[in-house]
Amino acid sequence: MIATPESREADLIGLIGELYPICRSITGEGVRETLRRIAQRLPIAVHEVPSGTQVFDWTVPREWNIRDAWIKNLNGDRVVDFRECNLHVVSYSVPVRKRMPISELKEHLHTLPDHSSWIPYKTSYYREAWGFCVSADQARALADSEYDVCIDSTLADGHLTYGEFYLPGDSAEEVLFSTHVCHPSLCNDNLSGIAVAVFLARWLTTLAHRRFSYRFLFIPGTIGSITWLARNRDRLRAIRHGLVLTGLGSRGGLVYKRSRIGTAVIDRAAAHVLKHTAGENEVREFIPYGYDERQYCSPGVNLAVGCLSRTPFGEYPEYHTSADNMDFVEAGQLEGSFMACQSIVRVLEDEARYVSRMQMCEPQLGRRGLYSSMGGAGEARVQEMAMLWVLNFSDGHHSLLDIAERSGLSFESIRRATVLLHEKGLLERMQTDGSAAFDALHGEIGESAR
Amino acid sequence: MIATPESREADLIGLIGELYPICRSITGEGVRETLRRIAQRLPIAVHEVPSGTQVFDWTVPREWNIRDAWIKNLNGDRVVDFRECNLHVVSYSVPVRKRMPISELKEHLHTLPDHSSWIPYKTSYYREAWGFCVSADQARALADSEYDVCIDSTLADGHLTYGEFYLPGDSAEEVLFSTHVCHPSLCNDNLSGIAVAVFLARWLTTLAHRRFSYRFLFIPGTIGSITWLARNRDRLRAIRHGLVLTGLGSRGGLVYKRSRIGTAVIDRAAAHVLKHTAGENEVREFIPYGYDERQYCSPGVNLAVGCLSRTPFGEYPEYHTSADNMDFVEAGQLEGSFMACQSIVRVLEDEARYVSRMQMCEPQLGRRGLYSSMGGAGEARVQEMAMLWVLNFSDGHHSLLDIAERSGLSFESIRRATVLLHEKGLLERMQTDGSAAFDALHGEIGESAR
Amino acid sequence: MIATPESREADLIGLIGELYPICRSITGEGVRETLRRIAQRLPIAVHEVPSGTQVFDWTVPREWNIRDAWIKNLNGDRVVDFRECNLHVVSYSVPVRKRMPISELKEHLHTLPDHSSWIPYKTSYYREAWGFCVSADQARALADSEYDVCIDSTLADGHLTYGEFYLPGDSAEEVLFSTHVCHPSLCNDNLSGIAVAVFLARWLTTLAHRRFSYRFLFIPGTIGSITWLARNRDRLRAIRHGLVLTGLGSRGGLVYKRSRIGTAVIDRAAAHVLKHTAGENEVREFIPYGYDERQYCSPGVNLAVGCLSRTPFGEYPEYHTSADNMDFVEAGQLEGSFMACQSIVRVLEDEARYVSRMQMCEPQLGRRGLYSSMGGAGEARVQEMAMLWVLNFSDGHHSLLDIAERSGLSFESIRRATVLLHEKGLLERMQTDGSAAFDALHGEIGESAR
Repeated sequence: MIATPESREADLIGLIGELYPICRSITGEGVRETLRRIAQRLPIAVHEVPSGTQVFDWTVPREWNIRDAWIKNLNGDRVVDFRECNLHVVSYSVPVRKRMPISELKEHLHTLPDHSSWIPYKTSYYREAWGFCVSADQARALADSEYDVCIDSTLADGHLTYGEFYLPGDSAEEVLFSTHVCHPSLCNDNLSGIAVAVFLARWLTTLAHRRFSYRFLFIPGTIGSITWLARNRDRLRAIRHGLVLTGLGSRGGLVYKRSRIGTAVIDRAAAHVLKHTAGENEVREFIPYGYDERQYCSPGVNLAVGCLSRTPFGEYPEYHTSADNMDFVEAGQLEGSFMACQSIVRVLEDEARYVSRMQMCEPQLGRRGLYSSMGGAGEARVQEMAMLWVLNFSDGHHSLLDIAERSGLSFESIRRATVLLHEKGLLERMQTDGSAAFDALHGEIGESAR
Repeated sequence: MIATPESREADLIGLIGELYPICRSITGEGVRETLRRIAQRLPIAVHEVPSGTQVFDWTVPREWNIRDAWIKNLNGDRVVDFRECNLHVVSYSVPVRKRMPISELKEHLHTLPDHSSWIPYKTSYYREAWGFCVSADQARALADSEYDVCIDSTLADGHLTYGEFYLPGDSAEEVLFSTHVCHPSLCNDNLSGIAVAVFLARWLTTLAHRRFSYRFLFIPGTIGSITWLARNRDRLRAIRHGLVLTGLGSRGGLVYKRSRIGTAVIDRAAAHVLKHTAGENEVREFIPYGYDERQYCSPGVNLAVGCLSRTPFGEYPEYHTSADNMDFVEAGQLEGSFMACQSIVRVLEDEARYVSRMQMCEPQLGRRGLYSSMGGAGEARVQEMAMLWVLNFSDGHHSLLDIAERSGLSFESIRRATVLLHEKGLLERMQTDGSAAFDALHGEIGESAR
Repeated sequence: MIATPESREADLIGLIGELYPICRSITGEGVRETLRRIAQRLPIAVHEVPSGTQVFDWTVPREWNIRDAWIKNLNGDRVVDFRECNLHVVSYSVPVRKRMPISELKEHLHTLPDHSSWIPYKTSYYREAWGFCVSADQARALADSEYDVCIDSTLADGHLTYGEFYLPGDSAEEVLFSTHVCHPSLCNDNLSGIAVAVFLARWLTTLAHRRFSYRFLFIPGTIGSITWLARNRDRLRAIRHGLVLTGLGSRGGLVYKRSRIGTAVIDRAAAHVLKHTAGENEVREFIPYGYDERQYCSPGVNLAVGCLSRTPFGEYPEYHTSADNMDFVEAGQLEGSFMACQSIVRVLEDEARYVSRMQMCEPQLGRRGLYSSMGGAGEARVQEMAMLWVLNFSDGHHSLLDIAERSGLSFESIRRATVLLHEKGLLERMQTDGSAAFDALHGEIGESAR
């Protein structure tokens, strides 16, 4: 059951289209409905955490739900209608039902002057307030009159909901993927991240063999990661590598933001994959602002978790507006992001140190059929060079990723050369504790030291 | 008594103007008169070290004084007159009184062919000689005749004189400022350094609180710093940071020359201030040539002393010529140099490590009124980012300067965020021995390790 | 007996011209004849290693010799004649004597389509095969007919032959120079390397004093270095520095390829010399492909051996073609390469740490006649700066090469300043164990710590 790129592109776009109409927030039915749709594709566990639960310095907030909202003119016409676009209501708006003059109403209106037809996206999670987001054109069209305003929402004790998918591997050491599910009808931020995560998890389940266990979190931003971290403190030390996935469907190259550690294997693996992936890709240093990596990379947590996106939040005008819609995300970009995640996983899975059984001088590759005596070209040439790199630096100190970085060759070329050389008995794989390589090294080195 | 920039600019220029006419050298009445003028503004101690005193590899030289000097033509007209410009006499010229043909005289004349109206500045401290410095125009105008030459100087046992101002702080650890007082009528080199040092010391005396003690040296170049070092060897270990101040009034950006150590706090503080100060500023590596940092950075001394100037010596044509006059130094440039020194001092004073009481995930800034829930802009945005940086990196390992450097934000922004967070009880200041931070760190980290 | 540049240029070209006609391969009479010619200039030892000898993963091959080879048309005309150019026969071709149609013959012809008048150079050492290398013009001129083909070669048990020159110095620690002698009529690759090695060895014999012992290897590529390493494993630890010499006569700047270690003294010495040598010189990182440095830098050997060449192999079209002939190598380029080798040797020989007897402040250079009191210019200025650098950094931690690198001055300037200061008693040379410098350092530092 390996998806072709074409079918997966359709799957990615299909899931985004299915989730797009749902009004999500950091709590409430929108999140639950989203998780139900995900559960049709991936056997996630759904967790409910009661309002009022203390999670580190934070408290799980009351649950917010909304049924309807509108601004009507005195004729009773809905001039602003939540049913048309769920961005119209400031997320976590308290209930309101009142007639008011336009002057009072305007204090609760948010617009985007620079993009007069776009509706902004606003939230007020931790301060009680209400408001409408409308296009500048809509605001301008409002007559100097009175309006009936209704937000039919509830803000009451309930739960914070998140989804979790755990896929065991050979080792209890984990790779964490985290993506936020708290944004309403916004496609790139973050239905793209959700879709890539779902299909990445599905692909991982198809693998015959997994070195690592994998954990996928579908959580509301900030409070969700804080809640998960607070409830899983004893699991943190098992997390070896991780990625926050977000904004993966828009134009632009891939952008990897390093973990706070900065030189972790995930940082090097992601940087390597971006270097060897076509496009104007970019690696950035960690800053303590952004998505949930802020929490995963807080000083006492300090996990090796980076963030993969395309053009980062705030750097494209459609960000947090109604223009981040189904037209804004591109199937090819989603597929490219998916494939970069696959490549990163492959580096994590295959990263290892090998030891050459020939420490003194090169082995004779020609008589093993590994070397064209008349000189190779093209891909064969790359493969020969990769073999020389692997043999020379498989000294017990350099891993495949080390060798890929030093040689400038792709991890995949280095990995393939390693497989070939291993099949010919020229390499031995080092155990994590280094012990198994002792004989390989000392066969040669011991002799040379006589 | 905080000077406004305008009044300080006037003070800086005023002091330079007052000192300009005095004929200084490495010893003698010119230095004493200069120190008397400084003493009217700053309660310096004046030290007299007898000629012949051995200071490391050097000997304090005889004292040089000069009353008058001239070259007269046979009509008795002074064609070169020391009273017009004290640069006319090579510093440390031995006395001479003799009629001689122009051919003999010319062997003792120094000119600047490329700037025919400028008089060069020359010295002959450690080799007995005499000479006149004249403009190329003056030299050209000398007729082929005989001249009466007089240098009414004395070179005799006496003293080397230097000034010292010590301002105690909370700690016996010192910050050293050193500036040379041996140049005659040259404004940028180094009346500018003297003036900035005097008013920097005055500003320091007005501070309610000083972490460090401060020491200002007003010394003749080379022999002065060697003499001071030889007489104060047991004090050297108290010097934590230092700056040689020179050439601070001319055009051009600020130039910081690193200490021999290269990565000392003074090096990082000065580089940081220059990066965040407008202008084409520049940081250069240490070289064992220049001003008194040569001695402070000799291998066995190796103090964390850099050199702050504007366009460095030898890189502007007016250097060591009569064109380095009152027109050459600019009040705004002096003031800018002064402010850079202030900023560097503020970094040194406030540099410290703090520990966040919230090591696991971010604290909720919003409920403490520290975070605009709708997103900030401009200065408020910088302040919010600075808070996130301080919280994330206050892990017991990173100082405020570390955080400023890593974030790209100014030390001042980081410091202000630290003050705010400290007031809210979110940070604890680390003691020098690290002990007081133990509880703060272990409250959180201990929990996470359960 | 110091050669002038002019006479050495003639010597270098003369030796290349003498060796050019000989048909060399990795074994056989061509190598022996080449070593006989070298022996007329340098008392090398010639070693013979029997076919079948196991050397690490390799086996010394059978010996190949060739007397004649040709392709004749049916008229009996030699249309391809080994006697005209020994590149015509693929090296290690098995004997053949057969009439065949052109279709069959063409399967054994190698040409260079892009350079229709050039003959390529091909080998088939480790796979039994035969073939002819001809110009594309020659191939095109062959009529559609039958041809008589003859390769009068032998491939039989014999020996692998190599030459070795060992020149003892004060220390048993060695500098290794290695150059390959297996290429037939190709001038740059590698008669240039052979010629430079021979005259470098001759120059070294003329030195009154050598700190290191020197070893020169004249060996067939790959199998030669593997054989030498296998037979000399107990000598490897004495090798401190080394260079593979190759391709030193062509156009283009000098190119130094670092050893696998990358920061060894030879790497720094060669990089320094190239930086201070006129021309577009270049330093490259180690890669595990190239000449015999592949073996010297295999992981279990890991000697500090780099490779010095001009435009590297494969980067000039004449590489491994008949166009790498006597016209291709230039006397001036050979001489420049020779001089670079000399300069590198001088750095290796003179690299040392000194300790200044004046650790506290500068010594007074003026009274020792080392410093112009009025300021120096040009070469004198460089010398004064070099003295200041040496004095400041002769702290027991920095070597002359360290100081040269840090100052940007040439090693030669630093060395000359060191000699001057040593003569004046201002420096003491550190012994390898550092002990002798103890007094010098503690005279000053001990005092300052009182």
